[in-house]
Amino acid sequence: METLTPKTIKFLQQPTSQAWVEQALAHLDTILLDHSHCERKAAGVALNLMFRYPSSAKLVRALTAIAQEELEHFELVNQWLDRRGIDLAPLTPPPYGAGLNKHIRPQEPHRMLDSLLVSALIEARSHERLGLLAAHCPEPDLAAFYRGLMASEARHYGAYWTLATTYYDRETVDRRLHELAIIESSILETLHPEPRIHS
Amino acid sequence: METLTPKTIKFLQQPTSQAWVEQALAHLDTILLDHSHCERKAAGVALNLMFRYPSSAKLVRALTAIAQEELEHFELVNQWLDRRGIDLAPLTPPPYGAGLNKHIRPQEPHRMLDSLLVSALIEARSHERLGLLAAHCPEPDLAAFYRGLMASEARHYGAYWTLATTYYDRETVDRRLHELAIIESSILETLHPEPRIHS
Repeated sequence: METLTPKTIKFLQQPTSQAWVEQALAHLDTILLDHSHCERKAAGVALNLMFRYPSSAKLVRALTAIAQEELEHFELVNQWLDRRGIDLAPLTPPPYGAGLNKHIRPQEPHRMLDSLLVSALIEARSHERLGLLAAHCPEPDLAAFYRGLMASEARHYGAYWTLATTYYDRETVDRRLHELAIIESSILETLHPEPRIHS
Repeated sequence: METLTPKTIKFLQQPTSQAWVEQALAHLDTILLDHSHCERKAAGVALNLMFRYPSSAKLVRALTAIAQEELEHFELVNQWLDRRGIDLAPLTPPPYGAGLNKHIRPQEPHRMLDSLLVSALIEARSHERLGLLAAHCPEPDLAAFYRGLMASEARHYGAYWTLATTYYDRETVDRRLHELAIIESSILETLHPEPRIHS
């Protein structure tokens, strides 16, 4: 795969392909609509983890901040949809999320570790792809919007990784992150035919 | 029931009893912990409705703002818990939420209407009870905190009611709200033995 990433995101095993960038730039409206769904889902994931681990104070504090930021971004993306006259329509998700989630082991303590690392990887990939949109989007206002989001999105994958190392030893985290990162990149190896943030 | 409410909340059929106020003031730490759970749950309810009706633009916009405020309050309550050395422990919920939710009719278009009105009633009751805590709490800082929350909580029940009247005709909304408000007050008629925001 040819790399178009301004800087390598260290968690990711493979950079995003040229083919995804071309697909996304050819379908900016669909990418915006999918992005809206992604932000809502990201807020939902953070909140679900807070419900599952309500007594883990550091997790609750970090995820409250993340959920708030995701909702802010959701609102901002929806304002873009509104300005472009795009209705908040449903979109079939790409296989990416389900493909990753099925590798979350159902028993604790694995479940929390895998949940945090899958979120870290999704955030890392989102950060990388918003960076690509910022760099290559031909509409300057929209490119600036993506650049603005990146700045705060960048913190999220670090926050999930930091939470993982708060509750698990570093070697366990690194080993499992490496396994999941290989899976993450392999899911994206074949470009999904419908344009999505994670196609 | 003797009324202690500074002003009547028009949605509510019966004001909160003196017995609840006495119970709450005698267990301020437990009330704070339960309040934390309530704010997280309120954010969860708003987000769940956004997931269930992702294409209803007015609902999505209003509930994004509500979910953000609930998360801000959640963070503020958790700071109070932290200052008082109270751990984020689980608490068994009172029968209030489940007692109301079972009256949400499962079929659309009833389901959305009932969901919005149940949330409106819960917010109205929370607003009333935070007002009572603000008026009667013997700790000035904590009383001021409750007063501060009330100001924004006040908008939430109005927002849920407004959403109901956006998607349903006024007569349908008023009739169903009246039915649910009678149920809501009847659930609270017997004080739950464990101190909770909705005991």
